[in-house]
Amino acid sequence: TLSSSSAASDVYKRQERNISLYTINAVDIAKEIGLGGRTNMIMQSAFFKLADIIPGEEAMKYMKDSIKKTYGKKGDKVVNMNNLALDKGVEALTKVEIPASWKNAVDESKETANVPDFIKNILIPMTNQQGDKLPVSAFKGAEDGTFPMGTSKFEKRGIAVDVPEWQIDNCIQCNQCSYVCPHAAIRPYLLNAEEVKNAPAGFTSKKAIGKGFEDFNFRIQVDVLDCAGCGNCAQVCPSKEKALVMKPIATQMNETANWDYALTLSGKEIPMSKETIKGSQFEEPLLEFSGACAGCGETPYAKLVTQLFGDRMMVANATGCSSIWGGSAPSTPYTTNRNGQGPAWANSLFEDNAEYGLGMYLGVKQIRNKIADLAGELLEADVSSEVKEALKFWLDNIVNAKETKKASSLLIAALEKVKASNDRVNYLVQEILDRKDFLVKKSQWIFGGDGWAYDIGYGGLDHVLASGEDVNVLVFDTEVYSNTGGQSSKSTPTGAVAQFAASGKPIKKKDLGMMAMSYGYVYVAQVAMGANQNQLLKALAEAESYPGPSLVIAYAPCINHGLNLGMGCTQLESKRAVEAGYWHLYRHDPRLKDEGKNPFVLDSKAPVAPFKDFILSEVRYSSLTRLFPERAEKLFEMAENNAKDRLETYERLAKG
Amino acid sequence: TLSSSSAASDVYKRQERNISLYTINAVDIAKEIGLGGRTNMIMQSAFFKLADIIPGEEAMKYMKDSIKKTYGKKGDKVVNMNNLALDKGVEALTKVEIPASWKNAVDESKETANVPDFIKNILIPMTNQQGDKLPVSAFKGAEDGTFPMGTSKFEKRGIAVDVPEWQIDNCIQCNQCSYVCPHAAIRPYLLNAEEVKNAPAGFTSKKAIGKGFEDFNFRIQVDVLDCAGCGNCAQVCPSKEKALVMKPIATQMNETANWDYALTLSGKEIPMSKETIKGSQFEEPLLEFSGACAGCGETPYAKLVTQLFGDRMMVANATGCSSIWGGSAPSTPYTTNRNGQGPAWANSLFEDNAEYGLGMYLGVKQIRNKIADLAGELLEADVSSEVKEALKFWLDNIVNAKETKKASSLLIAALEKVKASNDRVNYLVQEILDRKDFLVKKSQWIFGGDGWAYDIGYGGLDHVLASGEDVNVLVFDTEVYSNTGGQSSKSTPTGAVAQFAASGKPIKKKDLGMMAMSYGYVYVAQVAMGANQNQLLKALAEAESYPGPSLVIAYAPCINHGLNLGMGCTQLESKRAVEAGYWHLYRHDPRLKDEGKNPFVLDSKAPVAPFKDFILSEVRYSSLTRLFPERAEKLFEMAENNAKDRLETYERLAKG
Repeated sequence: TLSSSSAASDVYKRQERNISLYTINAVDIAKEIGLGGRTNMIMQSAFFKLADIIPGEEAMKYMKDSIKKTYGKKGDKVVNMNNLALDKGVEALTKVEIPASWKNAVDESKETANVPDFIKNILIPMTNQQGDKLPVSAFKGAEDGTFPMGTSKFEKRGIAVDVPEWQIDNCIQCNQCSYVCPHAAIRPYLLNAEEVKNAPAGFTSKKAIGKGFEDFNFRIQVDVLDCAGCGNCAQVCPSKEKALVMKPIATQMNETANWDYALTLSGKEIPMSKETIKGSQFEEPLLEFSGACAGCGETPYAKLVTQLFGDRMMVANATGCSSIWGGSAPSTPYTTNRNGQGPAWANSLFEDNAEYGLGMYLGVKQIRNKIADLAGELLEADVSSEVKEALKFWLDNIVNAKETKKASSLLIAALEKVKASNDRVNYLVQEILDRKDFLVKKSQWIFGGDGWAYDIGYGGLDHVLASGEDVNVLVFDTEVYSNTGGQSSKSTPTGAVAQFAASGKPIKKKDLGMMAMSYGYVYVAQVAMGANQNQLLKALAEAESYPGPSLVIAYAPCINHGLNLGMGCTQLESKRAVEAGYWHLYRHDPRLKDEGKNPFVLDSKAPVAPFKDFILSEVRYSSLTRLFPERAEKLFEMAENNAKDRLETYERLAKG
Repeated sequence: TLSSSSAASDVYKRQERNISLYTINAVDIAKEIGLGGRTNMIMQSAFFKLADIIPGEEAMKYMKDSIKKTYGKKGDKVVNMNNLALDKGVEALTKVEIPASWKNAVDESKETANVPDFIKNILIPMTNQQGDKLPVSAFKGAEDGTFPMGTSKFEKRGIAVDVPEWQIDNCIQCNQCSYVCPHAAIRPYLLNAEEVKNAPAGFTSKKAIGKGFEDFNFRIQVDVLDCAGCGNCAQVCPSKEKALVMKPIATQMNETANWDYALTLSGKEIPMSKETIKGSQFEEPLLEFSGACAGCGETPYAKLVTQLFGDRMMVANATGCSSIWGGSAPSTPYTTNRNGQGPAWANSLFEDNAEYGLGMYLGVKQIRNKIADLAGELLEADVSSEVKEALKFWLDNIVNAKETKKASSLLIAALEKVKASNDRVNYLVQEILDRKDFLVKKSQWIFGGDGWAYDIGYGGLDHVLASGEDVNVLVFDTEVYSNTGGQSSKSTPTGAVAQFAASGKPIKKKDLGMMAMSYGYVYVAQVAMGANQNQLLKALAEAESYPGPSLVIAYAPCINHGLNLGMGCTQLESKRAVEAGYWHLYRHDPRLKDEGKNPFVLDSKAPVAPFKDFILSEVRYSSLTRLFPERAEKLFEMAENNAKDRLETYERLAKG
């Protein structure tokens, strides 16, 4: 792959410095001895063996004592398994003999002929940790600090141990695998007859099902080198016999050619609404292959938003995880569709991101008002009826996103034909064409985590929501400052262990949604993708279409939570959160009030699972029972009562 | 008066530069022709006459045209009255002949022997606008930036035109005049027999009424030189025949000697609770004679808080009006009681004041925790039973304000007697005595306006309320940035005209109280002194005693509102606001929930007066009907509906 040259240069340096190189197949060992994906104990043992800081036997004794102390309560089986991991970590080390000739090896030249200059001149050197050596001149043309989009696809990191394998016969074509994928690495494709015919050998497909799909074949294509291997796709697959099965990546390398072919397939008019689970997934995701954790609970939300609104979207992103997976220089996961349209994205500070997004919105509003003035004047001038009709159609639909797309094409085409003898007319036409990117109504989004929305950026968020302007806020709620190391935020619930709340947070989670609802004119929703995919879609569509401020608070399981089920079950975990009454789903749409209806709809049902079973399945809570058992009991009791109080409040609102 | 030397120096300069000096008795003219206190038209006419920028007749024409335009709709009477004011402004100008000898006049030396050095060396020069000439050495001993308290009483500005005259026979001794006075310039006094006997001639008093008051005489004493002449005391006086009548200040100058005598009266054990309207006013106000506007709606709240908690109070004050009237260098209106105890006060930024107050609180908490540790150790050591009992009593009552006052005295007295042979005991005693100011439980307050609380400081305010710590927040809600010139805040209601909302604010007033209540563990109250004096007292007492965060939002009429009734009726205006359903009174006490009761109590009754009559009696609203009549109608409709929605929400909460 393009970035593998770094490995070569590293080895080169090793040889020069007479550094020894060892490998260990910790992944296979962990699987064999029953530790699943947990390789830490094996690697720790291998480290102490090689580092030789303290004598090997002594180190082993310390580690075994520690295992007994940590896992003793979980029984002998767990203790033995971990002890075995320590032994294996020593035994399975394999020294790699490095040929003397490598001392004089040089980096092979790579096949970079077909990649853009940015990739060749900036991304590859930076990825190879040679960024410091880039001359200033390498950034010529990018002086304003913008980075090209869609560059994450050039990384091809191949980090997954196992990747999903599509079981064509079991697939019911629901597209849920694609819907939940945090890395956009599994996608449904529709093929026409020609494309079926030209497909490479392994590129199997089946008759597409559903009304209007009669002429197409259907295929799920996995992008094995961009997949992070979390397995959520397989977990959510609703087929009786799973249509996705996780397989070692080495067995799936033939899929890379299939992926390349899939990318060449033509765009199709999809015969169903894109505001459905299935329909949304035929839209190109404009957020792909980010560096987010495998199983990240945040990225699937952002990816879905790009599928719904990405071609006319602007994003102001608060600092936090979403600003890291959203744009880790030199790689940018936000990308463009086949027409070259994609989100404009920028990151601002924790403390001003809402304002930053409002500024983007107001800037665009100002430009569009100017176009409307110009168009109004042009409408009264001596121009063709085609121009007049196009102007009128645009003016009449100025805030209707869908119609402005049509109107924009018509108007640009009509204006480009104008050659008037009147200077003023030519001037007006040119002024409008200079602003043609703003003819389509934009979709303004403000993204950030709970550290931003509940805490550091809340003053600004409140001000922006209060402004009444048409912006959409999406909060990735991990209930903790995930990116900076797990500090407690005002979103952290009672009893959760976090930095600054080492003995469990003693006070309640802030109800951000309730506070926003108190304005009356703010659209507010709480969602959880894994709990209700449909409700999420409804909420996003309503939020975006609401001509005022909107706030969508999305539950996002996170590595910081320490899920017993693992990060391959983040979708399931958010389902469990709702079933246990830990998280609630609702939508508050001010438009309903104008229709004389109750604006508040409670979308989640009464809890069906025990609250404590849920929280104790996450280390952020369960660790407290080991540290402070009595306090844990007290705080968990409070946590459950707080969750019940919340639900009661929502039920009261729902009754109106 | 002490500061009158400035007038002398000004005249001196005039003579040196051959400047002409004119006077005009605009106050009397305005009264005569029916303009009440409005002297602006008279002064404007006088200005144009003297300035001679445009020919006199022309200027007069412009001004008369403008009067017709502005007041034409109000009828001929108003127009004629204003035209007359213009004529009088020219006619009544009187030139003052300045003797030639003044050219060589020098400032008379003032009687400053009995005033503190700070007054002599800093306050008087600064008040005389000679502050720039002060050498750095003048501030020796004040290097940390602190200013002495209680220095506003040395200003004796004498700015009132009319001041209240006490009608002894009509007085029912309710103390409401004192309760509402924005400047603490009218106070009730109790005299013992000795004091009655020694009183100067005009110092009349009558038998005090009420249980326990049998041994006292009662008197209301007006401080005419510190009174701003608003007249709220007379307005609120509930006697059938008013016990206070506004009289020209010149007729009341004999009261200055009476005031001086009143200040010498002894402190008495008051035989009633200070948490009553009458009782609270026998407590020394520790905020007096500030530079707030006559009739200010904010200062009576702050003054009352100092009467209730001032002797153990710390205040973090946000920038805004309250930081100006709270501390305009060189004059400080916060003062100390006869025991030298008073609030510690400091002003911080708009954007961090809540955090600043929390920091004060946490600092004190840390010190008191340290004392508790020291006391705990000392309790186990070899000390007298008197010391042990005092330590135990203090430790047992550490968060009980009243008991810590007693405990503090006992403990200090006991510790000061200790002379132990044991070094450790001596050390512990000394460490506690070093911290003796913190033995009494402090009352931490955070003051600010709506610009601070609803807007710029809201992010921090929310964070501080969420912290769960024992701080008390008092918001002076004028619904506008009063101090900086009347910008719209998130507290400004629909339809009000303000800077940034010149055509009436189109969106709703933010419901700060609701947002704070969503935490569940925050004490929240909305109050309006003029509407319900008792409810205010209850709210302040509950807020202060609640061992968690408290927020009291106080309605404060302001010159910025343009009251038709004038600033002499700010108390009446807030009564009208509640009667019209414009402002609502409630208290939300989380302690009630623990008792199984509804924590929310709605204290105001259903509206009994028309909403629109109320808003149209204030220029901030009525001006919109002149500027944009149609929009005004629409916005006022919305404003009324918003107020009704609010009330419905409160009623729903009150039902539980």
